[in-house]
Amino acid sequence: MSAGAIVAIPVRGIGEVRTGDRLDDLIVAALRKSGERLRAGDILALKHKVVAKAEGCTRKLAEVKPSARALRWARKWKHDAKLAEVALQDARRVVRAGHGVLITETRHGFVCANSGVDLSNVDGGETAVLLPADADASARRIHAALKRKTGLHIPVIVADSFGRPWREGLTEAAIGVAGMSALHDFRGRRDPHGYQLHATAEAVADELACLAGLVCGKLQRTPACIIRGFAYKKGRGSSRELVRPRERDLFR
Amino acid sequence: MSAGAIVAIPVRGIGEVRTGDRLDDLIVAALRKSGERLRAGDILALKHKVVAKAEGCTRKLAEVKPSARALRWARKWKHDAKLAEVALQDARRVVRAGHGVLITETRHGFVCANSGVDLSNVDGGETAVLLPADADASARRIHAALKRKTGLHIPVIVADSFGRPWREGLTEAAIGVAGMSALHDFRGRRDPHGYQLHATAEAVADELACLAGLVCGKLQRTPACIIRGFAYKKGRGSSRELVRPRERDLFR
Repeated sequence: MSAGAIVAIPVRGIGEVRTGDRLDDLIVAALRKSGERLRAGDILALKHKVVAKAEGCTRKLAEVKPSARALRWARKWKHDAKLAEVALQDARRVVRAGHGVLITETRHGFVCANSGVDLSNVDGGETAVLLPADADASARRIHAALKRKTGLHIPVIVADSFGRPWREGLTEAAIGVAGMSALHDFRGRRDPHGYQLHATAEAVADELACLAGLVCGKLQRTPACIIRGFAYKKGRGSSRELVRPRERDLFR
Repeated sequence: MSAGAIVAIPVRGIGEVRTGDRLDDLIVAALRKSGERLRAGDILALKHKVVAKAEGCTRKLAEVKPSARALRWARKWKHDAKLAEVALQDARRVVRAGHGVLITETRHGFVCANSGVDLSNVDGGETAVLLPADADASARRIHAALKRKTGLHIPVIVADSFGRPWREGLTEAAIGVAGMSALHDFRGRRDPHGYQLHATAEAVADELACLAGLVCGKLQRTPACIIRGFAYKKGRGSSRELVRPRERDLFR
């Protein structure tokens, strides 16, 4: 491995995750089978969907009764009223609604489509997967379990794919972080020319989530990867570092 | 290298880039010195600043005369009026202004702070670096030159760091793309459970730019990296794929 290189290695063979499964066990077993091993300095990135499934953050659509608001929305945009209902129940508020897209602020403070609720990679469309109730806590639990099992400090990032204003396509965002700073703050540091940086904080947890997105793909049943070679800053870490406070946000 | 892994290798020793420099020459020379070689399947990612410098997309602040509008803005927020002037000159329109942040739509259609104009990593604060006039064209030129020099098809991504609504910290975005699709569109494909994906297009060029951000860092004079192992889709490619048309954008 070249000096300064970053490597992301898919963790294959985790299999279908069910409510009550312990992800740390599944990951360590999958690594063992594939001949990979966690090393000091590694980061573990996980797609949020396996975390949500393991924690039972799902809703059978057959049991959802859409409100009048969800029915109006679904009729207008030819969407699924039950999915809209689950999204609205998980929202603190609707940020924008139009063009068939429902942008909400979730109870965690994330701004994303449909409160992050979606139907893919579950059971063919009968069950909605919600965001984990507290993905930072999920990340901390897995981080602690990996410490017990391996003796190593392995930061954990839980990733979901979000849309963005102004730009097409989804990119991954970190919705749960443990064991490292989510932001690297360069403000006050000087560049090689002596210029003092003013507004440069890098959302490294989101960039690591994006790398996980590239490795894990959308259709490959690979919900986790190991990221090796990134000089993270050790810390408790939280996805809250990445949520801009309302009073400093020009787009709420 | 594990099957399915993605590796990003920094290209060191490019040195200070000056107007008129040929980046493809500098990159090939730096690779040779460091013992690295481009291989089939590799992608080259570049920080936009070296592209802008090589192309002379800079403004000496001493030669900028701020308009009344730039002076008002600078006074209100204790900012540099000359920098604000350069940003306003490069803007198609101001999207939001507040909290000391000037969010503009550039003539390319990108929405970012200060039209992407910044002072870091140049000469200590005397010269502003603008976005390349057409970073897709820059990427295509480097892509073609690498083809001539190596015989290989090497997609090129030009990256800049952008802020985002709702989330703290910058992440890298692709402002120039050549030789590959910027978006991977999964719409209509089925997941392993048979569920048909509806709204899933992945902005892979932005995610690759994020990986470049992690490898290149902000203070390390490493403006380029090779990304190996990502199954890109060959194509002409353009950063325009990533710019959401105004009529479909809820946040213009």
